[in-house]
Order: sequence, then structure tokens, then C-alpha cells
Amino acid sequence: MDKQFSACGVITVTTDTANKGSFVATIKGVILTRFIEAKIVDLTHDAVVQWPAEAGFWLSRAYCYFPAGTVHLCVVDPGARLEPHALVAVFDGHAFLGPDNGVLAPIVASGASTYRIDLNLLDRIGLKFTGGTFHGRDLYAPIAAALACGACKPQDLGAPTSDVTPSWVDDPVVSAGEVQGTVITVDNFGNLITNIDGTLLAGLTQPVVHAGGHEIPFKTTYSDASPGEYLALVNSFGVLEVARSEMSADQGLGIGRGSPITVRNLKSASSRNTTSNSVVNQP
Amino acid sequence: MDKQFSACGVITVTTDTANKGSFVATIKGVILTRFIEAKIVDLTHDAVVQWPAEAGFWLSRAYCYFPAGTVHLCVVDPGARLEPHALVAVFDGHAFLGPDNGVLAPIVASGASTYRIDLNLLDRIGLKFTGGTFHGRDLYAPIAAALACGACKPQDLGAPTSDVTPSWVDDPVVSAGEVQGTVITVDNFGNLITNIDGTLLAGLTQPVVHAGGHEIPFKTTYSDASPGEYLALVNSFGVLEVARSEMSADQGLGIGRGSPITVRNLKSASSRNTTSNSVVNQP
Amino acid sequence: MDKQFSACGVITVTTDTANKGSFVATIKGVILTRFIEAKIVDLTHDAVVQWPAEAGFWLSRAYCYFPAGTVHLCVVDPGARLEPHALVAVFDGHAFLGPDNGVLAPIVASGASTYRIDLNLLDRIGLKFTGGTFHGRDLYAPIAAALACGACKPQDLGAPTSDVTPSWVDDPVVSAGEVQGTVITVDNFGNLITNIDGTLLAGLTQPVVHAGGHEIPFKTTYSDASPGEYLALVNSFGVLEVARSEMSADQGLGIGRGSPITVRNLKSASSRNTTSNSVVNQP
Repeated sequence: MDKQFSACGVITVTTDTANKGSFVATIKGVILTRFIEAKIVDLTHDAVVQWPAEAGFWLSRAYCYFPAGTVHLCVVDPGARLEPHALVAVFDGHAFLGPDNGVLAPIVASGASTYRIDLNLLDRIGLKFTGGTFHGRDLYAPIAAALACGACKPQDLGAPTSDVTPSWVDDPVVSAGEVQGTVITVDNFGNLITNIDGTLLAGLTQPVVHAGGHEIPFKTTYSDASPGEYLALVNSFGVLEVARSEMSADQGLGIGRGSPITVRNLKSASSRNTTSNSVVNQP
Repeated sequence: MDKQFSACGVITVTTDTANKGSFVATIKGVILTRFIEAKIVDLTHDAVVQWPAEAGFWLSRAYCYFPAGTVHLCVVDPGARLEPHALVAVFDGHAFLGPDNGVLAPIVASGASTYRIDLNLLDRIGLKFTGGTFHGRDLYAPIAAALACGACKPQDLGAPTSDVTPSWVDDPVVSAGEVQGTVITVDNFGNLITNIDGTLLAGLTQPVVHAGGHEIPFKTTYSDASPGEYLALVNSFGVLEVARSEMSADQGLGIGRGSPITVRNLKSASSRNTTSNSVVNQP
Repeated sequence: MDKQFSACGVITVTTDTANKGSFVATIKGVILTRFIEAKIVDLTHDAVVQWPAEAGFWLSRAYCYFPAGTVHLCVVDPGARLEPHALVAVFDGHAFLGPDNGVLAPIVASGASTYRIDLNLLDRIGLKFTGGTFHGRDLYAPIAAALACGACKPQDLGAPTSDVTPSWVDDPVVSAGEVQGTVITVDNFGNLITNIDGTLLAGLTQPVVHAGGHEIPFKTTYSDASPGEYLALVNSFGVLEVARSEMSADQGLGIGRGSPITVRNLKSASSRNTTSNSVVNQP
């Protein structure tokens, strides 16, 4: 099902630290101490605290833009600072490393080969893990370095598992004439990015988004709306996004992370009076 | 006019995403996928949304501190998410890549060799560009990788052009005894950084800055003012800056990005009663 | 006393710029211009302005997670933009570079070999330093590059010194039954991180933290407290930290950077009525 993982030397790092202090820096320092040729890239550090859904979303939607053989280290709460229940998942030639708190659920659900890391096997990578509260630095960083330099394979670190913590958001619900989902993240422009994959909208002939008390038409691109007008589109990460031309949709609609979003077919009566029911394009 | 561009493997990235989410990360991932030896540096990501003047300022003032042969990828709105009108400019041995929305105007105005990127030529770098809304990742990142690894030259990508979108701020206006300019950016210390190059002040014998209803004397360095006192100087990027010793000038004066700034000669009557008319030093 | 410094090519960068604008970028550009193989990592950029204690704390607590032979460039105010009084310190196989404004005091106090950089010797590294206000880019970056590529040794740059500016915070005061210290930084979770090393608490048999009008018990890890409950622990950087389970301790207690923190033995009368006097664990 999955492509084998063959390390390319790249490691991405995801946290919920907002990059304050030197938490991320010491994760990188530990990686470089063990594998000085590592190429380390920040995936995101502004994932909201105590809601792994957002980090998991970015991980599952962004990984594929990195070279095959990349290791993706993702450490967010809750649970990241407790007794570690660490997972490594392999999917599409990439390795994903993080706590079993739901953050890896979207990757696992894609059909990844997933292994529960056995702390007793860490001497294989020369790691004496003694616990503590900063697993990103003291547990995941050494493992990421070992995977990225080829010193070990994901399957060396523990037994296969399929019993992992599910995602913190429900998958979108698709029913006749309706798709219900959730806002997962908001970008710097105030655009509301949801977990509704564009393919889920295929069954709707004249989709309209219902959010924050507004009915919002689909457009092909941002410039198809007038300034101040709300629009929906399938964005560059393949999911439904609600935007407001030249303004912030999140402020205008008063909704944000975790808010529900519904897409319904335009009622046929009103469909004769609107020009806003454009086809959904997948960029 | 310009030094030839000969790639050194370094790429800088400038956006207006505030580094939220994984937008910048995927730009870097695409670069590494195509050129794994790329050395990628963030130039700035906090350029204000929908005002390319700020990103263009940093690009034109910061590029020269990078090695010759650096590729500078700059993607900010407006227009960055529409049908792409992409430019590549070569100046002083550096390559600059971005939309034709004014962000490259300061570099072009310096006398760069500028080319309008022809999307039909992108098969030269193995890119099938299919549109979408995230050109930073899907168009500019592959081109940056190709330029940085030497797979193509700027002039391979399109025809020369001199007809480009001008800057979003007027150039400073120099007249007898007066220079008028604009605040372009504010740093973390609340210092107001303008587009008035220090050389434009040469004609003023006793310059005083007029901003936010205050008359502000020039000093050689920050420590020449008492705490709370405003001062003007030519800063380390060669432009007029208004600061407030140990405090924030922007908060004190109530001005910010886009605000007008005027420098005038001190009136001779009052010049006898002041000690603040120090010579302008260029650091 | 100290291990020799033998360059490994890694450079960390610490500033108080909040990573706004291109200040940090140009520091990195200058480094790459002189040493294109440098591996540059951000240590922290959100150190509070005009209080070097915070940057100095992170430097002294985070450096050891980087490879031996790393150069740590740290430029924060005050004084970073005045006539430079630059230091280079060698400790534990690492080199530390920064202004003599107290930021390096914790490293120097550890027993580093410290040298005062002689600007007249900079031709040894091909640097013509002409002053100005941005020493991070124009002075420290070229020196960091020279140290990191092995072009010079710390002792080549000036004479040994032991007369350096002390830290901006007093060391913790240990007396019978009491330790007094200071909050140095607050992380993204609102945890209050102090300068009280865990070893200083060894003399307290039943320590309780007094902060913001609360008496706060020690726990081994974050999960040992109920939601909303305050707890104290020795954190992953080896110092006393005050947290609030699933909430922000800084907001709840109304204290922050620079606030005093006292640890006292629990009064024996009340100790019989509490279950909160757990042993201090050092992670």
C-alpha cells in the first residue's frame, strides 16, 4: 500500500510552541548533533495549543511537497509531555513521527504502515531515553536524526499497530445534497480552511456554503468576487476554503478554528436568480 | 549594466503569510524536491498584506548582503494568486523572481535586466504549470530551484521587458530645502524606516524631520538622544529612520507604514537656539 | 577548565528583533557570503527588548544541545548599536559571540575563557569594520563566519578578560529553608520559567512555590495536576517552572518576565494536611 521509506536527509519540524524561546532550536540542535548533514525545515509552529487537528491537517496536506524520504517530526499537545506513546508511520515514501494523540490520524487513515515505538529498542540508535517532559527534543529528535541519516528504518523501532488515537475532528459527513465539515485553520489573510476535500463536493451540482449565517457562492479564484464579497473555492491544498475578497472572512463571519461549515445544493427556486453557482474547480 | 547571474545555490524567500500555516514550508519543500542542495533563507514573511511596497523595500535593501548568485523569490499580493504575470530580474549578480505587481519595481528601477516569464517555456525546467491559486509554491518555487541549481538562466525564461508595474509608493520628492518621503516599515523597536535614501539629504545643510506633528533633530547614533527623545538618523540600510530613545517612535508619533515624512532645513532663526542640527552621518 | 573550541560549521543566531523585517536575514546573508557551507539555526528572536537576561538564559540553557564546535551569535540591546564592546567566550567546546552588555554573563560565570574583541585585529579575518548601528550584521556575522569555518580561533581576536558586565538579573539567593529567584521567560503555554536551577532546591525537604499570592505545590510532571490547578516542577531545561494545568500560569497569577519567585519549605503544621509536597524530580 505504501511506498518504502528511503531517507533523503530532509526533516520537517512541527510544534505548537509558536516558535517562542529555544524549544524548536534545541530540537534542531539535537538533530544536528546526531546528523550534521540534516536539512531541517519548519513545517509550522503556530498550531493551536491542545488541538492536534490543526497540526495534523498541515502535516497531511503539506508533506507531499517535500522530497520522498523526508522525515516529518510533529510534536504537539496533549500528551506530548507525558509518558510517551510514540508512533512512526510510513506513507507515500515519507516517515511521520509523533505522539499517539491523534496528530498522525489523517496520515494513518490514508493507509500508512504504522509502528508503535518501543522505548526498549532505542539503544539501537544509541539513545538512552530517561523520560522528562520535553519529548520533542529528548525522544523524537534523536529518532528523526536516525531515520533521516539511514541509521534505522521505521520498522526497526517497534511493532506494527493499527490501534491509534483517532483525529480530534470528525471526518466530513456526506449525505444527499449536503456535506458537513469543520474549519481547521485560518491563514494570515483571514481565509477559513476546512477539512472538506474538494472531491467530496462532486455530488453537489450547485453547491453553496453555509457559514456564520451567510450563504456563500463558489468561485474559481479569489479575483472572481468583488471587494468585501464572500466566496468559496477549493484551495491550493485541495480543500474547501471560505474567503472574503480583500478582507478577512474569519472576522466578517465571526467564526474560526473548529467552527462547523455546511455545503448544500442551492435550492432550485433561487438558483434561477443567481449567477453565483459556478463549477467547483480543483486547482 | 548588470553583473551576470551565476548561481551560488542560495535562495531567499519573501512572503506576506506571517509564516502562518505551511505555505512557506511547501515553497521550501518544492525547492528541495528539485534541488536538494539548495540553501534556503527567509528574507521576511511579515510584509503587510496587499501593499507590496514593504516587501519590495526589504528585497532591494537586503539582497546585497547575500552572496552573488543568490535567487530571491518574493511572492506577495495583490495579484500573486491570479493569472500569473511573473518576472525575473537580474541585478548586481543576483536574480529576483516575483509577480509583476510592483514588488520588484525598486530592483527594476535600479537598472536590472528584466524578463517576463513565458509560461510556455516552462517545459525547459520540467514544469507543467496548471494554474491554481498558490503560485509561490507551484510556479515560483520550481523556477527558483532551476535558477539556483544552474539548470536555466533568467534569459531562458522569457523575453526582456521594461514595461513593468511601478512601485506602490512614490519615490521621494526632492526640492529646494525639502525632501518628502514615506514610512515603509516599522521594526520591533518601533523605529520608523522610510524610503528616503541618505544621499537625498545631501542638499540640506541643517535637516530636521517633520513627522506626526513633531520636529525631530538628526543624531549620529541612537545613544545621542536622551530617553524618550525623538531622533532621526540614516540607518544601517542607508535610509532615513525616525527613532525614540528607549521607546517606540511609531506609538509616540501615532504614525506607521505609509505615513508621509518630510525633511526640511532648520529655519535659520531657530537654528541659533538649538543644538540638535547635527550633521547627517551615513553608517 | 573549558574544552577547546574546534569549529563544526554550525552557527546559532539570537536577537531581539522578533524576526521582523530583514535584520536576521542579512546577518545570515553575511555569514553565507563568507562561509557558504555554514549551517545556521535560529536560537531565539523573541527576547524582550532591552533586557538581555532572557536571551542570556536561553543561550546558557540551550547551547549544550548543539554539536560541540558551534558558534552562538547573540546580539541584543542595550548597547548592541553603540560603539561595540564585543566579547567572544569559549565554554564546553562552544564559542559565544556578543556585546559586553550582560547577555554572555551566565556563560562567563560558568567558567568560560573570555576574550575582548580588538577591532584592530579584524583585518585577520578580512573585515574592515567601519562602525554604524547594526553590529549583528556588520561585526558579529563576519566574525561568526570566520570562527565557524576555522579561519580564526577565539583567542586570535583579542586579549583575555575577566572584567565583563554582569547579568541583568541577580543570581538566586539561597538561605535556610528558602530560595529566591526570578521569572526569566514565559513560553507559549503561559508557563513561567525561572532562573532557579533545580539543584538549588536540594536543601528544601518540602518545597512550595510562592508566586502571585499563591502557594504552589511541586509535581513530577504536568499531568499530575488537575485542570486549572497550579503546579511547580523542575523543567526540561533544569530550572524551576510554574505551570497551570491546561491553562496559562502567567495570566492566572498576573506575573511575568522579571517577577520574583520564592520557594520555601512547607510549614510543618500545614504539611500534615496536604498531599502536594511531592519530591522534586529532575528530568
